[in-house]
Amino acid sequence: MSENLSIERKIVKYSNGALNEVEDQVVTEFPLTVYVNNEEFATMVCSPTNFEEMVIGFLASEGVILFKKEIKELTIDSERGFAYVELHSKTVKNQQLFSKRFIGSCCGKSRQFYFQNDVQTVKTSMSKATITAEQCIQLMNSMQEDSVVFKNTGGVHNAALGTDEGIFVSRSDIGRHNALDKLYGYCLINGIPVRDKVLVFSGRISSEVLTKAAKIGVGIVLSKSAPTDLAIKLAEDLNITAVGFIRGTSFNVYSHPERIVLD
Amino acid sequence: MSENLSIERKIVKYSNGALNEVEDQVVTEFPLTVYVNNEEFATMVCSPTNFEEMVIGFLASEGVILFKKEIKELTIDSERGFAYVELHSKTVKNQQLFSKRFIGSCCGKSRQFYFQNDVQTVKTSMSKATITAEQCIQLMNSMQEDSVVFKNTGGVHNAALGTDEGIFVSRSDIGRHNALDKLYGYCLINGIPVRDKVLVFSGRISSEVLTKAAKIGVGIVLSKSAPTDLAIKLAEDLNITAVGFIRGTSFNVYSHPERIVLD
Repeated sequence: MSENLSIERKIVKYSNGALNEVEDQVVTEFPLTVYVNNEEFATMVCSPTNFEEMVIGFLASEGVILFKKEIKELTIDSERGFAYVELHSKTVKNQQLFSKRFIGSCCGKSRQFYFQNDVQTVKTSMSKATITAEQCIQLMNSMQEDSVVFKNTGGVHNAALGTDEGIFVSRSDIGRHNALDKLYGYCLINGIPVRDKVLVFSGRISSEVLTKAAKIGVGIVLSKSAPTDLAIKLAEDLNITAVGFIRGTSFNVYSHPERIVLD
Repeated sequence: MSENLSIERKIVKYSNGALNEVEDQVVTEFPLTVYVNNEEFATMVCSPTNFEEMVIGFLASEGVILFKKEIKELTIDSERGFAYVELHSKTVKNQQLFSKRFIGSCCGKSRQFYFQNDVQTVKTSMSKATITAEQCIQLMNSMQEDSVVFKNTGGVHNAALGTDEGIFVSRSDIGRHNALDKLYGYCLINGIPVRDKVLVFSGRISSEVLTKAAKIGVGIVLSKSAPTDLAIKLAEDLNITAVGFIRGTSFNVYSHPERIVLD
């Protein structure tokens, strides 16, 4: 479905001191409004691919569902940008907590930060997987080589899941969290155990990205870019290995370096 | 306050085939939960600088206030990450519409997309300002040269306002929308008319960024990165000139090119 990630458009280019009309590739952005049991739940502004995966991953990530089988019916109106989810249950878990901050009893300066729904859905990693430094670099290169849209438009984030044998699923989106929701949905739909997998990501590791990784359930997160200090604290807390700045033949390990081994 | 944008941390670096502990700069990320009239309104995960500007810009952007004088009291607890806003009015405008999608009567494929609060707060630009191609490049260079944090950590977005005479205010944040809210708040606090100013931005022009630009009220948006197709449609609709990929001596104009002139 990568043909939906960008479109051709006429633009005006300034170059060598002159303005000229040319054709260019522009990344697409699409609003998908999700209804759960006939009530508006959220609007995701996304790249228009893999809608089902994205909606299922998002609902799991928000704690509305734990398994795909809790969904009775999922209908996508991709023309008008609506997803209608009917749950077997009449009540929607966690709706009133959506985007509400969790305020723990311990409010010192070093406290971690979570949203209410995250407290219920993040898992401390139990992963025993390790990978070699060489595999970290190979997994990142392999994901990036597969993505032609980024090169054409400079516009999408890539996220992939892999093992020490390579990448087995890769998704793209203009929104970093959507790319992760698509991966999560893919795993839920196909019943793929995630614990010993590696998450490979093109964008920055923010607290939101790290939290999503914990919800998906991986033990290792590889990024081409930088993590934030809050993401590193969460990674330490949740027993996740966060690796950043994978470029050329070097990278940085920010938490739980015991999972990264030399050959 | 740029010292708050990043901190030093010990990390493990892989380079030349070896893993070694080194000191590194890591970008900070801080949760600020905003209460309006004693009710939790939203949590902004941000770079911990310019809180007052950010909160005021955010509330204006969401249609809760039009002017700073509608705020009776604003207290920031920067230790624990809370902002308490008391309005002169007892009722909070637009709270129930927050993040709700606007569904217009015209739902053809070419419709634009707005959230409910956006419909009430975006303004079609009436700007008559023009700038030269050379000034586009100079404004971008000038903003980027001022920002050392990006070079050190690869982690923050920069946003600035300028005229044909140069940049007059610049703000940084890990969140693109926060950087824009800080600018908006700065203008509201200092009573600065924005109509004929230029917004300079380091990140991608998504629909959200374009919508914020329209709320702030500028007629020209300059970006180092790519716009999305939805942002271009909104820019056409709102009479905003969107310029992207300003790199070296060239750039692309995506909408209303009449505001970009040759020397």
